[in-house]
Amino acid sequence: MQILVLGGDGYLGWPTALHLSAAGHDVAVCDNFARRGYDEELGVESLVPIASLQERVAAWVQVGGKTIKTYVGDLCDAAFVHGMVGELRPETIVHFGEQRAAPYSMIDQAHAVYTQTNNVIGNLNVMYAIADIDRDIHLVKLGTMGEYGTPNIDIEEGWIEIEHNGRSDRVLYPKRPGSFYHLSKVHDSHNIEFGCRIWGMRATDLNQGVVYGADTEHTKLDPRLATRFDYDGVFGTVLNRMVIQAVLGHPLTVYGNGSQTRALINIVDTVECIRISAENPAGRGEFRVFNQFTESLSVRQIADTIAADYPGECTTEEIENPRVEAENHYYNPRHTRLVDLGLEPTLLSDTLIDHLFEVAERHKDRVDLEAIMPTVRWRETASELPRTVSELPRAASELAPAK
Amino acid sequence: MQILVLGGDGYLGWPTALHLSAAGHDVAVCDNFARRGYDEELGVESLVPIASLQERVAAWVQVGGKTIKTYVGDLCDAAFVHGMVGELRPETIVHFGEQRAAPYSMIDQAHAVYTQTNNVIGNLNVMYAIADIDRDIHLVKLGTMGEYGTPNIDIEEGWIEIEHNGRSDRVLYPKRPGSFYHLSKVHDSHNIEFGCRIWGMRATDLNQGVVYGADTEHTKLDPRLATRFDYDGVFGTVLNRMVIQAVLGHPLTVYGNGSQTRALINIVDTVECIRISAENPAGRGEFRVFNQFTESLSVRQIADTIAADYPGECTTEEIENPRVEAENHYYNPRHTRLVDLGLEPTLLSDTLIDHLFEVAERHKDRVDLEAIMPTVRWRETASELPRTVSELPRAASELAPAK
Repeated sequence: MQILVLGGDGYLGWPTALHLSAAGHDVAVCDNFARRGYDEELGVESLVPIASLQERVAAWVQVGGKTIKTYVGDLCDAAFVHGMVGELRPETIVHFGEQRAAPYSMIDQAHAVYTQTNNVIGNLNVMYAIADIDRDIHLVKLGTMGEYGTPNIDIEEGWIEIEHNGRSDRVLYPKRPGSFYHLSKVHDSHNIEFGCRIWGMRATDLNQGVVYGADTEHTKLDPRLATRFDYDGVFGTVLNRMVIQAVLGHPLTVYGNGSQTRALINIVDTVECIRISAENPAGRGEFRVFNQFTESLSVRQIADTIAADYPGECTTEEIENPRVEAENHYYNPRHTRLVDLGLEPTLLSDTLIDHLFEVAERHKDRVDLEAIMPTVRWRETASELPRTVSELPRAASELAPAK
Repeated sequence: MQILVLGGDGYLGWPTALHLSAAGHDVAVCDNFARRGYDEELGVESLVPIASLQERVAAWVQVGGKTIKTYVGDLCDAAFVHGMVGELRPETIVHFGEQRAAPYSMIDQAHAVYTQTNNVIGNLNVMYAIADIDRDIHLVKLGTMGEYGTPNIDIEEGWIEIEHNGRSDRVLYPKRPGSFYHLSKVHDSHNIEFGCRIWGMRATDLNQGVVYGADTEHTKLDPRLATRFDYDGVFGTVLNRMVIQAVLGHPLTVYGNGSQTRALINIVDTVECIRISAENPAGRGEFRVFNQFTESLSVRQIADTIAADYPGECTTEEIENPRVEAENHYYNPRHTRLVDLGLEPTLLSDTLIDHLFEVAERHKDRVDLEAIMPTVRWRETASELPRTVSELPRAASELAPAK
């Protein structure tokens, strides 16, 4: 099957492209290198060195014997998107091509506006290209479990049957997310559901948990095929970040009391979920939602698991939660639909954590300790980042009158 | 109270500014004249001639004895918004400043993207200005009843208590709107609810019905104080448009079978709802939603009411529904919260319709019959507008490969 992976140079987009290519699909990737740009902006870099997209693709020809076509451009450029989809005529578009860090979206006004514009408008352009060119193209769109927030009722997969005053309906699951980034994904979901109604689009919205892990079967084959591994306070996600802290002898930083729960998924399951979704497309006009995670752990449990497994000394430290979120909450999200389609979950295990310790150990000379702590605070409108970005002029901070 | 009306040059923004000023408030308006620009783009104009904002404000000094301060600028310009709010320091911001026509948002890719960018980013900038400058400012935000769609259960005011698998929660009412315009308002609502959580913003989200009527107590006082009256297929709303059709001897055009139901509100109630909301602000951190309409009628009932009341001959004609919407549906939305705060509804009456006939009769030489019919079709990605706009280069149509 011809598959276009948007954001195909990113942490998950690249391993997904490899996985789909290895599974026999004809894969093209699109990226504008925005993710590499955020590193430049924030003065941080991936723990694991990553090759350029050109080097990656060349290495895959050598190692995997398969060609991956590349498109370089911005999804906010409607002409580019239309031209690419019209030329490639994919059967499936896998859409990872969005700004994906909650803290990044909360830095200040400019970053909030950037995130919502980039994500919502980019996705609208993809929808219009599909509607214009071929409404049979299956859109596999990455959303997040964070879209739901933490309601006091069970979280269903996208839709919920509710009864009210003696009548009932199947409605979109009500959402109350926790950042302007998560909100951008909620906006996307609403827009796509509408596209399914008016244009008969086929869409799978994947509400993904926090991804952990450094490697898939294919990224391991050659250092040039490695994917990024982020540990900084802005783009680093909880489990990966704590592994680095353990290796460096830094206390594992738990935000707040740590009882807030996260839905998690191993990177090897992410790429498999995308393959399963692509190979089992949504019907014409169907807006299908899968909760793409395999287990839930509290932040405290994640820290305790890592501390217990780390061979050296390891402590944890509660720091003030920079986010505004419920720490003690009910959390029971369903996640059966991908398993029904064949996903075999790879749960967090000692083996996996040992591998992550090994990766972190191998690259620990590259770590910038200063970058690990959270710098973006939800209640502020402009955060003081520790390095270059704070010296750049930014809309909100420049405009703020002296207080 | 110091009140800033965003979109204060528009159909409802201007009468609201007059109403609040007459009620003793200190009113400023902001506009970028985008609404007047859409007329230029589409080659249509208001049935009732309207003065420039400068003439309007000058007339109000003479007639009402009160000054209305004006700001001219774009809400998507964060520096402008921040400067305005910082200078004026309003207690209340009434936000009418968004693109408000569903058909306009559905013309093509460029108009969908424009609508969502303009509305969502403009509103985000207003939120950031409030969060930066004074979190006590009460945001009174215009939404639409169209955000809800037509669920098979009762529509509550913004929030709903649901019980699910033996547990319960109060959640945002699930929404499934019918255009990229309506979606932009859903996105706004989600963003604002988050602002209330993280910044303690005070917000009132007014889900307004379709507004009809040509005048308020104050717009009638002088022709220079008149507000616009739209009858074209893009910006004209159903009741106003049908009145013009009756006066011109044109069949009243009913989209589809006409059994789709609309929540309606008289323009004199709109301005009163805004006054009531402003004078009874939401609490710190409260995201309050009012359904701002007074009665529901099917499109067929609206046509029949007008036809029955019109003194001359009047026929109705069913035309293909350009929208994608359920025509036969359950519709029972609550609307008690504004009444609880003192709203005395002004229902559709013979007197009101007679006044509208009179207004239409007075200006019927200004009508362009060609502009009345719908030209924007929901299932298409690019609509052929009847006049100038179709000759302008537009992104989606330019890009579309020959079919």
